[in-house]
Formats: sequence, C-alpha cells, structure tokens
Amino acid sequence: MSFRDSLQRVVESVPGAISAMIMGFDGIAIESFERESGGVDLPTLLIEYSGATQQLRQAAQQTPQVGHLTELTVSREGGTCVLRPLSDEYFLAVVMGPNAVVGKARFMMRMMAPQLRRELA
Amino acid sequence: MSFRDSLQRVVESVPGAISAMIMGFDGIAIESFERESGGVDLPTLLIEYSGATQQLRQAAQQTPQVGHLTELTVSREGGTCVLRPLSDEYFLAVVMGPNAVVGKARFMMRMMAPQLRRELA
Repeated sequence: MSFRDSLQRVVESVPGAISAMIMGFDGIAIESFERESGGVDLPTLLIEYSGATQQLRQAAQQTPQVGHLTELTVSREGGTCVLRPLSDEYFLAVVMGPNAVVGKARFMMRMMAPQLRRELA
Repeated sequence: MSFRDSLQRVVESVPGAISAMIMGFDGIAIESFERESGGVDLPTLLIEYSGATQQLRQAAQQTPQVGHLTELTVSREGGTCVLRPLSDEYFLAVVMGPNAVVGKARFMMRMMAPQLRRELA
C-alpha cells in the first residue's frame, strides 16, 4: 500500500477527519491526503505543531524516566490534531474537525505506524 | 474550595492520576497536589511542557482560523499528561501513569476550569 493509500484509509475511517499527512520534523511534507480543507491552512498549522513536537521530543532526553514521546494531541476551538512520531525524522499527523471521533484516529494511527515505519526505513 | 482542594479532587477522581498542578507559562508552580511521584521529576517535566504549550498558543495567533488552544495531551511510554490553559498566564496540568483513564482527567479538567479561572482572575 502506498503512503497516500495508507493516509486515505486513515482519513476515510475516522468520522470528522479532514486530512492526514506524513511530515518531517523539518516541516517538509512527504505525502498527504485531504478530504476537505475546512478553511484551515494545514501545512502552516503542521509546521507549527512539528516545532512543538520536536521540542517535546528533545525534552524527553532531559527527563529520560518518562520515556519517549509516543503521541501528541492538540485541541483547538476549531478541531483536534493528533501527531505520532514514526522515527527520529518523520511523524504522522491527522487533522480533524470539532466533532471528530478522536479515539478512532488514535487507534488507526497506532495500527498503521509499524507499516509506515517499515516503508520509511 | 482552595486550589489545593480542587487539585486533590481531580487527582483522587481519576484512576491512574499521579499529580495535578496549576502553573504559570513562565514555569512557576502556583499550587500542586501529588498522590505519588512515580519517580518522575514533575516540575522539570511540566516546565518543558509549558514551553511547548506556549509555542502552540503563540502559533494560534498566526493561524487564527483554527481557534485558541483548549487542551494539549502528551503521551510518553511512561504515562500521559493533559494540559489545559486557564488564562494567558496560567494552565492546569494532570500527570498520569501508563494505565490511567485519560478521558476522565479531560472531563474533570473541563469541569473544574471555570471555577479555577474565576479564582485566578
């Protein structure tokens, strides 16, 4: 399955999901699938989120007893975004609207991560 | 109800919660309640998280269409932390172990926020 097919599968199986993206922590998108934009500037949003995610990952090195970052959920008035690091360089993100089933997104991302990791390696 | 009583109520009603804290985005703790430390250096952890939260809040000003940050959930191998901004200066954080009922923490924090906001004003 291509990256785009994997992303499409995540978006279409999560009620309220707008888009899914594989992105580098440097802010460069590898692949994305978008169902509807919902008026949100997704690349800009994710570049900002990737900065915060990177900061949290680096913080883990200072407090090693809490373990590596596995998932970040950012909720805004306009919706929710879940980010899951795939490697030291890449993460998977799903952007959702305000009434999305966030738990389903978390589940799908956890399920898809090992396969995406293998393909990125 | 004092800040400490409120924090204790949150911690004791969430299975797996370790501690709750009201903290400034400058990293200075206002009040905290701790059930057990679990070997985690909580103030250091939360100072790092507050930096990332601040970054996400500032990012909201650049993409106003997504709305203000309402909640941040950081999951690590060792557990989960939920942060909820209370004002421009302060946030509420609940730190949980790996098998905590995170949804209950989110619910309790949402319920307690208006009262804490009034007391901080």
